[in-house]
Amino acid sequence: MKNLSELIKNQAAWVMEACDRLGKISQSNEYIDRQYLTKEHRAANRQVSEWMHTNNMHTWEDGVGNVWGRLESNNPKAKSLIMGSHLDTVVNGGRYDGMLGVIAPIALVEIVNSLELELPFHLDIVGFCDEEGTRFGSTLLGSRALTGKWQDDWADFTDADGISLRQAMLDFGLDFEQVNSCQLNPEDILAFVETHIEQGPVLENNDLPVGVVTAIAGAKRLIIKLEGMAGHAGTVPMKRRQDTLVGASEMILAAEKYALQANVLATVGRITNAPNAINVISGYTEFSLDIRSDNDHARDKCLELIISKFNKIAEKRSLTISTQLTHDAPAVLCTQHLIDKLAQACYLANIVPEDGAFELLSGAGHDAMAMADICETGMLFVRCEKGISHNPKEAIIVEDVEATLKVLLKFITHHE
Amino acid sequence: MKNLSELIKNQAAWVMEACDRLGKISQSNEYIDRQYLTKEHRAANRQVSEWMHTNNMHTWEDGVGNVWGRLESNNPKAKSLIMGSHLDTVVNGGRYDGMLGVIAPIALVEIVNSLELELPFHLDIVGFCDEEGTRFGSTLLGSRALTGKWQDDWADFTDADGISLRQAMLDFGLDFEQVNSCQLNPEDILAFVETHIEQGPVLENNDLPVGVVTAIAGAKRLIIKLEGMAGHAGTVPMKRRQDTLVGASEMILAAEKYALQANVLATVGRITNAPNAINVISGYTEFSLDIRSDNDHARDKCLELIISKFNKIAEKRSLTISTQLTHDAPAVLCTQHLIDKLAQACYLANIVPEDGAFELLSGAGHDAMAMADICETGMLFVRCEKGISHNPKEAIIVEDVEATLKVLLKFITHHE
Repeated sequence: MKNLSELIKNQAAWVMEACDRLGKISQSNEYIDRQYLTKEHRAANRQVSEWMHTNNMHTWEDGVGNVWGRLESNNPKAKSLIMGSHLDTVVNGGRYDGMLGVIAPIALVEIVNSLELELPFHLDIVGFCDEEGTRFGSTLLGSRALTGKWQDDWADFTDADGISLRQAMLDFGLDFEQVNSCQLNPEDILAFVETHIEQGPVLENNDLPVGVVTAIAGAKRLIIKLEGMAGHAGTVPMKRRQDTLVGASEMILAAEKYALQANVLATVGRITNAPNAINVISGYTEFSLDIRSDNDHARDKCLELIISKFNKIAEKRSLTISTQLTHDAPAVLCTQHLIDKLAQACYLANIVPEDGAFELLSGAGHDAMAMADICETGMLFVRCEKGISHNPKEAIIVEDVEATLKVLLKFITHHE
Repeated sequence: MKNLSELIKNQAAWVMEACDRLGKISQSNEYIDRQYLTKEHRAANRQVSEWMHTNNMHTWEDGVGNVWGRLESNNPKAKSLIMGSHLDTVVNGGRYDGMLGVIAPIALVEIVNSLELELPFHLDIVGFCDEEGTRFGSTLLGSRALTGKWQDDWADFTDADGISLRQAMLDFGLDFEQVNSCQLNPEDILAFVETHIEQGPVLENNDLPVGVVTAIAGAKRLIIKLEGMAGHAGTVPMKRRQDTLVGASEMILAAEKYALQANVLATVGRITNAPNAINVISGYTEFSLDIRSDNDHARDKCLELIISKFNKIAEKRSLTISTQLTHDAPAVLCTQHLIDKLAQACYLANIVPEDGAFELLSGAGHDAMAMADICETGMLFVRCEKGISHNPKEAIIVEDVEATLKVLLKFITHHE
């Protein structure tokens, strides 16, 4: 056991180094920026492929630009357990969001090899080429290619320089028309398990290195527009005002209150106000509402209450209100027996006491959302400092990587 | 009495025409824009001067660019009753804000002449050259020149084209160094009475053509800055957030609540939010607070309560708050015996029943604020449609001008 412990410690240290190294492959000298179909995408794929190859994995790149490695099973009827996450980043992002979920499984393979374990399934690792959607504005391009969800009209998506997705693929050596060739056959897949930093503070607040994701929240987004009456701040009596900013303020507070009551997440992140002058009562205010939950029904019920309250506030304040739904994605539940199996692995790895692993919700979207279309899906979250993500300050500690590797090892080796 | 009634009706109609005509003297072809020391300022002065001259007034332009007319009294010891307001406008302003208070007194002089009335005082009418501060950013330049309040360093005020106040005066034929020559001697003045549209809805809501102003509100302005923690809308639990926009919303509502309780005016007109993205919790919000009252003590006490509440909200929400006072002007009370005399005139003119005229507060600043430094000051407000001002939609009705002329006539002719 001393040996295994050492082995895991060493591999965890390697994961940290590898994340640092991958973080240096960037389109910018000042910060991390690695977008789809760039030479940095190519360089990251090559680096990851090299690490996989060193660990006796068979490697390839698929028709959309995802990098793959396989630790082949001796079982002739083996299906694949796919582990992975994404290798692309947002502009000025961090070193762990995505990458940790590719590198940790490579370290896991090294451990499996060192222990000379025989697995009854192929262990596939995938580094998805585009999850963030930074370059072409559409997220999950890498994973959605595997599930046959690409649309013909995506060919005309353009980046900030006006280069189309079709052209960028050609320049990279890929063919837009052939993307569906990388679609996977569900029959061949055992499950998809994604390891990812939490990007939130829940694990940190609960003093836990890892947690098991139960669902990826569904989100609805709305734009709310209020029209009132602009007026002179010195001449219109308080009771006669149709002040849209005060109305919006009352609505923003109401959204918070109902979200707290319903245990969903509601965020008003953007506000636009007019005429937005110190001595003029606001006559037009527009704001966004983002509402998420692992429970679509709870979310929709809460949203209904919020909108009803918004309408009452608008009426009381003589404001004209319009609400427009701009985004609507249902929640994706992780597969229950994978949740259970990951929870059990946490227990077996001595991460949590017997009464079960810590389960939590993913508020952000992940490749697992796409993969859930074709196979059973599970997710393991790793604690990150202060929950900060999409930021150079993104940080994890090596001890939590050790815990992650212990859990993943138990997950692939323990079979009741 | 039939004749007087006809006379007033005719003069009220002329006031409406004259306002229309003056409204056509504009730097823009599309909207009203008449700023200090422009050729349109010159043209407006010339037009007003011509109207005064037609009514047997002695006319002149003073050293700052105000236009004057005097209906001379036969009384050798006569002092001046000054009536007037401003002739400059905001960009895209209305036809009555300021102008009505110059033109209505000219019509009054025509009535006085027609009735062959002898007045025991000179009736001076002034058209102030700059009240709005549109061109050089500093308000009340015209009236403050009469009270000796100009400062040497104002010479370097510049307009949007970089032209200094000193240069603009030279180009107009005036000398910055000689402005104090137009300072008035308080000994020579009986009072200053300004007629102005209300710029608010109080008279309209009370179904009254005119009202007597008791005070011009004092104003304080503050900038409030909140710092919290930006975060992912999908990952940070509601209870863990340091959302500055929600904090600001709670503060905006609190300001409204305390203002209603204290009967002062509080306006949050401007808000800036960051990062202001749909799916990001706000980490920085800044907003303005404008608070006004005719009672400085009530205003300051209310502001104290508001700021104390702001601090509590910030503490509760773990936000860092800073407040900065950017403007502080005390309230100016109108002279009580002029308030009484104007109220009596309203009664004598059959505008209100015996129990007194309608008294109200001016939330906006006026030339009367400056004039109060050197003489007794009164103000008469005239109803304007929906309280709209600083807007091409600014509107008054001819019947209210009739009422105004009746009140002003009683005001100058009734002496107990």
